[in-house]
This record gives sequence, C-alpha cells and structure tokens, in this order.
Amino acid sequence: MNSSFTEKLKLYSSVAGDYLNVYIKSLKNAPVKLTDSMLYSINAGGKRLRPALLLGTYNIFSREDLAGAVPYAASIEMIHTYSLIHDDLPSMDNDDLRRGKPSSHMVFGEAGAILAGDALLNSAMENILSDILKDCTEQKLRAATVIMNAAGSGGMIGGQVLDIEGAADSESLRDMHSMKTGALIDASVAAGGILGGCSNDDEKALIAFADNLGCAFQIKDDILDVEGTSDALGKPTGSDSRNDRVTYTSLYGVGTAKIMLADHIDASLEALSGINCDTRFLYSAAVYIRDRKE
Amino acid sequence: MNSSFTEKLKLYSSVAGDYLNVYIKSLKNAPVKLTDSMLYSINAGGKRLRPALLLGTYNIFSREDLAGAVPYAASIEMIHTYSLIHDDLPSMDNDDLRRGKPSSHMVFGEAGAILAGDALLNSAMENILSDILKDCTEQKLRAATVIMNAAGSGGMIGGQVLDIEGAADSESLRDMHSMKTGALIDASVAAGGILGGCSNDDEKALIAFADNLGCAFQIKDDILDVEGTSDALGKPTGSDSRNDRVTYTSLYGVGTAKIMLADHIDASLEALSGINCDTRFLYSAAVYIRDRKE
Repeated sequence: MNSSFTEKLKLYSSVAGDYLNVYIKSLKNAPVKLTDSMLYSINAGGKRLRPALLLGTYNIFSREDLAGAVPYAASIEMIHTYSLIHDDLPSMDNDDLRRGKPSSHMVFGEAGAILAGDALLNSAMENILSDILKDCTEQKLRAATVIMNAAGSGGMIGGQVLDIEGAADSESLRDMHSMKTGALIDASVAAGGILGGCSNDDEKALIAFADNLGCAFQIKDDILDVEGTSDALGKPTGSDSRNDRVTYTSLYGVGTAKIMLADHIDASLEALSGINCDTRFLYSAAVYIRDRKE
Repeated sequence: MNSSFTEKLKLYSSVAGDYLNVYIKSLKNAPVKLTDSMLYSINAGGKRLRPALLLGTYNIFSREDLAGAVPYAASIEMIHTYSLIHDDLPSMDNDDLRRGKPSSHMVFGEAGAILAGDALLNSAMENILSDILKDCTEQKLRAATVIMNAAGSGGMIGGQVLDIEGAADSESLRDMHSMKTGALIDASVAAGGILGGCSNDDEKALIAFADNLGCAFQIKDDILDVEGTSDALGKPTGSDSRNDRVTYTSLYGVGTAKIMLADHIDASLEALSGINCDTRFLYSAAVYIRDRKE
C-alpha cells in the first residue's frame, strides 16, 4: 500500500469528519436526541472514502484551499450514511451490526433510525444550499445537481429498490450495483472535478474512471464476503451465500470475479491516462480498492 | 365557504398535481415499482393545501405566469407526502389508513414505503435544483433554503422526533406542532412571497400570518378528532384519546380550544392587514381552515 495515499485518505477523511461534527452540533432548533443519532452513525468508524475521493479529485484540478469543496464532500458522506442507516433496518437488510457496532435502529429504535436517516438526507441539501446562497456559481450548482441526482430515484435509491427485488442475472446485477453503489462514487469524483474546474473532457475521463472503480468496488465486496475475515470486516462473512443472494462470486466463481476485478481496475487506470494532470491520488485509490481487506 | 376560494384551491391544487405526475413519470432510470409507489401517495386524495398556499401567495405579489413558482409548490408537496408515508409506518404512528385508503406500507411493504419517502424527499431537491440550474436568482435560492430548512432537523423532522417522545405540557405541545406542522406551512407562504418578489416587511407579515395559521390548523385537527365524523376525515376519530396523546382538547377542553382557534385566526388576519396588496386568498384560506370538516 502506498503510504502517501493512506496518509492523504486519513487527512481528507478527518477534514470531512471535523466539518460534519461541527455542522451537525450547530443545527439550529434540532432536538439533541436527533443530532445524537445523526452523529452516532457519522462517527461509527467509516473510512469516508467518498468525501476523500471528492476532495482528492478537487485537488487534482485546484490547489486552492479545500474550503470550496468540503461542504460537498460532507454532504456526500451524509447521504452515504443515511443510506446505510435505512438499508440496515429490519424491513430492509435487517443488519444488527455495522462496522462491528450496533446499527442505528439497535441504539435509537426503528423510528429513531428512520428519522436520523431522513435528517441526514435533508441536512445534505441544507448544507449545500447554504454554501450556494453565500456565493452562487455554475460549478457549485452543477456539483450539487450531480450529487442529488446520483442519490435519487435514478441512482442510489432506485438501486436499493432493485436490490430488494433481487438480481437474477449478470445484467440486472450490474445495473443494480451501478445505481446503488456506483452512482454515488461517480458523483464523488465528478463533483470534485467540477468544483476544481476540470474541463469537459476531463469530466468524461473522471466518470469513465469512476464507473470502473464502482464496479471494482462491488466485485471486491463480493470476494471479501467469501474470502475475508469477519474481524477485518466488522460483520459476519458468508452472509450473501446464506441469504441466497446473486453476487459476482456466485454467478462467475471467485476466480473469474478476481479477473473481472483486475480488468475494471485496469480500465479505470486507462481512463486516467487521458487527464493531463497529476492523477496519482486516484491511481492509488484504485489500487487501494483492489487490495483492501475490509 | 367562499366559493371563489374553493375554486382557486382546486385550480392551484390541480396545477401542482399535474406538474407532479409529469415530473415523477419522467424520472430518468427510476424503477417503475418506485415511481408507482411515489405516485400512489401523491395521488391519494390530499387537498394539496401547501402548494396552493405557495401559489396563492405568489399571485398576491406577482401576476406573472405560475411557472416560476410551480416547481417549488411541487417540491413542498413531495416533502409533505414523504413525511406522511414515514409517519404512518408501523414503527411510528402505525396507521393502516390515510385519507380512507391503505397507507403506503400496506400496499408496497415497509421497505417500499421507506424508499418511496426517501425518493420523494430526494426528488424535492432534484426538482428545485433543476429549476435553479436553468436560471439562478437570489429569490429562488432563498425560497429553496426556506423550504429545506423547514423540512429538516430544526423543523418538520425535529418535530416528529418530539412527537414520538410525546408532549407533556402546553409549551412542549406548542413547540412540537410549530416544528412538525407549522414550519412547512410557514415555508409555503414565505416561499410564495419570496418568489413573487414581496418586500422584507411583507415577508415578516406573511410569517406572522402563517405562524398563527399553523397553530389554528393543529388546534382544529385536535377538535375534529373529538367532534368530526370518521367518514369526512377518512380515518377513525377519537384516536388521540385512545392513544393517550396530549392534545389541545385534552389539555384545555374543547370549549377553550375553540376560543384558542378563533384567537389564532384573528391574529393571522390581523397580520395580513399590514400587507398593502390584495390578500383575499390568504384571508379565505384562514377562514377555510377554521371551518373545515375534514
């Protein structure tokens, strides 16, 4: 693992985390019980990969202060976190543990967890709007649109609906994952580029990179569910097989899934070669996702 | 009842409803199962009072085409509708009926209802952003901010958290209702005024009007739960008393609650007198809320 990359990942993650803690604690008129439930999941030990991807991509195109991009990175993490809270609910995936800790509904009850999720999604928008209201630019509006569209019915939420229906074949599996997980990873990278002032061609290359990164991410998830250790993952392994879910490993076998993973990583790196800037951060992010143990 | 007012209410309601049906049906890449669940609740027979308040207030200050305000009216209705879907869930109020029809979770299951709600909230933002991206104005950004703040942790969602905890006295009852119901009614009127180009003084008067209207609305709800007929309401009456909820009628008795209702209506009309425009629509809206049977 590239140590400079993990250092940067930690740095970006802590910048986003600090912002989120200050933001949520300062929410006006919000009941403490509600902000406690929001903070519990925000601080539950996630790697904050999406805000780091946004901030790292921003820095490829702009060396200015991160302040111009942090609100968007924070909103992406609020959206990701709310989706995990709702996905874990008894009526959805019914997961009692998330990253080795009790899920939101185990601590705050089902109603509390639903409202914590609702509040995080709503706050994601309030936070972005507040930044745009201070100083409205075309880039900010486009980044906000990319993020909210990725989170919505044609992206993450739609993907969760397809996931509940259950994928039946390779095509529906790919579509489901590209909406449920891929869309928000795409948006993290694209919004970072847009806020940093990348060209249209660079934006297309970033999306091609992120599309492949999102596929690689999901294939790696399925491989880890077969080969990972529950200690590293903070959840039991083998749950896909026990739940009879169609996954990349169940459809293709672990060996072929590993080849597909390598192919998507190669394609993501190939897409980066079209960008005439220092893209080492994204290169390392792809390698990190390929090699991760959790 | 002022027949000109009920005509206008129907007109505004149908303008918002038409927009919403076209908008939701055209959501790109959204699974049909998801848009079906969104449309089910959007078309479940609500009066669409909030979008009508927004459009009617807009028309007080601007005689231009409604097109400049309709997206905001539609987004307010999507937010109101999602909140009803989530409030009805088994882990919240556990209501099987809404306006005489099966609640969302009775038709689409709990997971389907949670996701329909999430998608409506997300769409409310996507819809507003799409309008702002076409032509960004300070008024639109302020209207969007007013709406999203009213919907959030310091408004509607926070109010639902307080409602679940249960109000214990008159002060906590008022605070809970002013957040849970009042905030979005305030936002409907304020956003309509802002989009129509009202002055700062007019905006203050509109908020004073809407604050009192929101209180009156809730007191009337509690009176109807005691005195209304279940046929007119589309739900059983007496549910507050059966559920041992603290309400305006349980705290003060029906007689005093009726006096409080009249006082709030008077105060709302008094606030209107400061606005030097034709405010008959809002005057009639207050009388409508006072006299409604459902």
